Amino acid sequence: MINVAVLGYGTVGSGIVEVIMTNKELIEARMGDSIQVKHILDLRKFPGDPYEALVTDDYNVIVNDPEVNIVCEAMGGTKPAYDFTRRALEAGKSVCTSNKAVVAEFGPELMKIAKENNCNYLFEASVGGGIPIIRPLNQSLTPEKVESITGILNGTTNFILTKMEREGSDFADVLKEAQAKGYAEADPTADIEGHDAARKIAILSSIAYGKTVDFKTVHTEGITKISSEDFAYAKKAGATIKLFGKSSDVDGKVYALVAPFMIFSEHPLYAVNDVFNGILVHGNTLNDVMFYGSGAGKLPTASAVVSDIIEAAKNLGNPLYCGWQEGEITLSDLADAKRKFFVRTKKDAKAVEEAFGKVCFIDGGIAGECGFITEVMSEKEIKAAAEKVEAVSVIRVE
Amino acid sequence: MINVAVLGYGTVGSGIVEVIMTNKELIEARMGDSIQVKHILDLRKFPGDPYEALVTDDYNVIVNDPEVNIVCEAMGGTKPAYDFTRRALEAGKSVCTSNKAVVAEFGPELMKIAKENNCNYLFEASVGGGIPIIRPLNQSLTPEKVESITGILNGTTNFILTKMEREGSDFADVLKEAQAKGYAEADPTADIEGHDAARKIAILSSIAYGKTVDFKTVHTEGITKISSEDFAYAKKAGATIKLFGKSSDVDGKVYALVAPFMIFSEHPLYAVNDVFNGILVHGNTLNDVMFYGSGAGKLPTASAVVSDIIEAAKNLGNPLYCGWQEGEITLSDLADAKRKFFVRTKKDAKAVEEAFGKVCFIDGGIAGECGFITEVMSEKEIKAAAEKVEAVSVIRVE
Repeated sequence: MINVAVLGYGTVGSGIVEVIMTNKELIEARMGDSIQVKHILDLRKFPGDPYEALVTDDYNVIVNDPEVNIVCEAMGGTKPAYDFTRRALEAGKSVCTSNKAVVAEFGPELMKIAKENNCNYLFEASVGGGIPIIRPLNQSLTPEKVESITGILNGTTNFILTKMEREGSDFADVLKEAQAKGYAEADPTADIEGHDAARKIAILSSIAYGKTVDFKTVHTEGITKISSEDFAYAKKAGATIKLFGKSSDVDGKVYALVAPFMIFSEHPLYAVNDVFNGILVHGNTLNDVMFYGSGAGKLPTASAVVSDIIEAAKNLGNPLYCGWQEGEITLSDLADAKRKFFVRTKKDAKAVEEAFGKVCFIDGGIAGECGFITEVMSEKEIKAAAEKVEAVSVIRVE
Repeated sequence: MINVAVLGYGTVGSGIVEVIMTNKELIEARMGDSIQVKHILDLRKFPGDPYEALVTDDYNVIVNDPEVNIVCEAMGGTKPAYDFTRRALEAGKSVCTSNKAVVAEFGPELMKIAKENNCNYLFEASVGGGIPIIRPLNQSLTPEKVESITGILNGTTNFILTKMEREGSDFADVLKEAQAKGYAEADPTADIEGHDAARKIAILSSIAYGKTVDFKTVHTEGITKISSEDFAYAKKAGATIKLFGKSSDVDGKVYALVAPFMIFSEHPLYAVNDVFNGILVHGNTLNDVMFYGSGAGKLPTASAVVSDIIEAAKNLGNPLYCGWQEGEITLSDLADAKRKFFVRTKKDAKAVEEAFGKVCFIDGGIAGECGFITEVMSEKEIKAAAEKVEAVSVIRVE
């Protein structure tokens, strides 16, 4: 019998209970053991909830219960989630989490504690919601030298950008609508400024490149400066604009950033719209492989946590391999990174060509300005050239 | 030390050796053991090849070598691949294969032999080339009741259909070009008639629904009847045509077929072009998740085999879980399956509406005929109605 405790009975926590109860028979058959939710930790009461009797506000009940094998942490934030996780692992209980904040900040420490106590710290749900990506990186892409990861990792910003593209609307208006619909939070900063995506690309990069990429060192730009005018040019060029979390390992130099990118219709992530996520991994022998699905949402995220429960249950006493090993990666200076850029300016074509050399103009149909795509140049070069023409907008192109 | 033997030194077999040698250091670190290719089985000689000395034409050398832990079967066809696989498993050596013919026909038997001999029969590379799909089904989608699988599973036909769409060309011409480029074989029957895709959807369905789906019972149509006229209508409707391997589990009734489908731009598989593959899985709590990548090709396919080698090496003496359990699934009669259809006929709109009721006409710009999309109807109903209007073309719509 596998006894599970769920920390936090909010959206994801209640989803975990729902997934287990809905598919109990299938899960038990595949796990080779029976499963029950024994405790739910929450400070609130849930009168009338079918699992009301399982709710406790005392974590000691859970951590001191020798029958609990697996703890699911779905609290969000780092306090007290980090502390509770540490205590569970120290008690030899595996922890499965959807909490990217704890994983990005304390992942290596918690995996070390898990190993020392012969249990597992698993976090499939921390990136890409229900999309299997952590386990494929750890167990399927094992023969690969990962050369780059490019992800649409945040559903809120992808919803906003998709709306802006389809309706020609402005960022502020779409944000309001997203908030009204519950797709964006009252304080949307973590999403729209790219902080959420930065934690996620840091987690994926740490696994793929083998050591910690500190999310605080990832160059992070949000989508607040993207305008309907930018989309007008993109549309004319057969392109769209997406917020990417992106990292690459070029001859041992690791780059990472979160920023809006202009991409064309042949790009595998072009059709990832609305609240969906997509993650493109490029391996040196595998080439491109892409994972797509619901990047958030109660049941998809909960399903990923439950897949970790099943994995942990099959590996009681057996710490699993994770590509994310000890040590830190110092990210290389983006100034040297090279690519094409989309630029808008109120200067004329002559001034543009003086600053940028040969470019590819796009007729965006906006009076008094011009937009164009540059040749491949470094971030340092684009910065200097953009200043020369007092660029209104600069967006990376892929 | 993990000692590997590779059976068949053709495209995939030589790719396996290349992937191991290229990423040896990474592979050994992730596997926690050293690895070497000890034998290569082939009837041919390879003078000048760096691994020439490893080549033997005697399988007994391999199966009787107690140092060989893992055998990679990359021979193709069922004879002698099935026999060699069985003998390796009986000797307690895990077998990793890219050979869908053997997996589709003998999978359950070989997995049983593996279990009895405490080793593994793994076949990630048998479907979707380098795309991780077998392992995610077995290890990541474990909490899910899979309700449907829809895949573009054959690179050759996808290349042909993509060309037909882009260039407005006819099937026969594009097939010739594909053959000249090496994307289609001299005898292309297995690809263009859908037999290859049938084996693959049968393998995926057997894992997802838990028992053997016999590929010989899968309703299979190829792409030979798809014409440039069909694509003219598709284009006008903002759609395209793809060869799907598709199965679903509706209230315990399992349907499976291989057939061309007309799909629209919002479909997650719409942008899967050229020789790429894409596999969309719908789970009852996870919703849609899609896996995309190189469905064939030397190194991507070899990478999938090597991922199995690493998994097998980490699990010597430990048979892994596979969703594909004993027993057979009897497929339900497609006649009851319901969906929309695209139809072309030389009859007029009045005759069409008499036979089909309300339909949605598409102006394909072709004189003397009309094309339309029906409402949802059963396969039985469409057959009767199509006969009434002497339909020139009937394509399923999704």
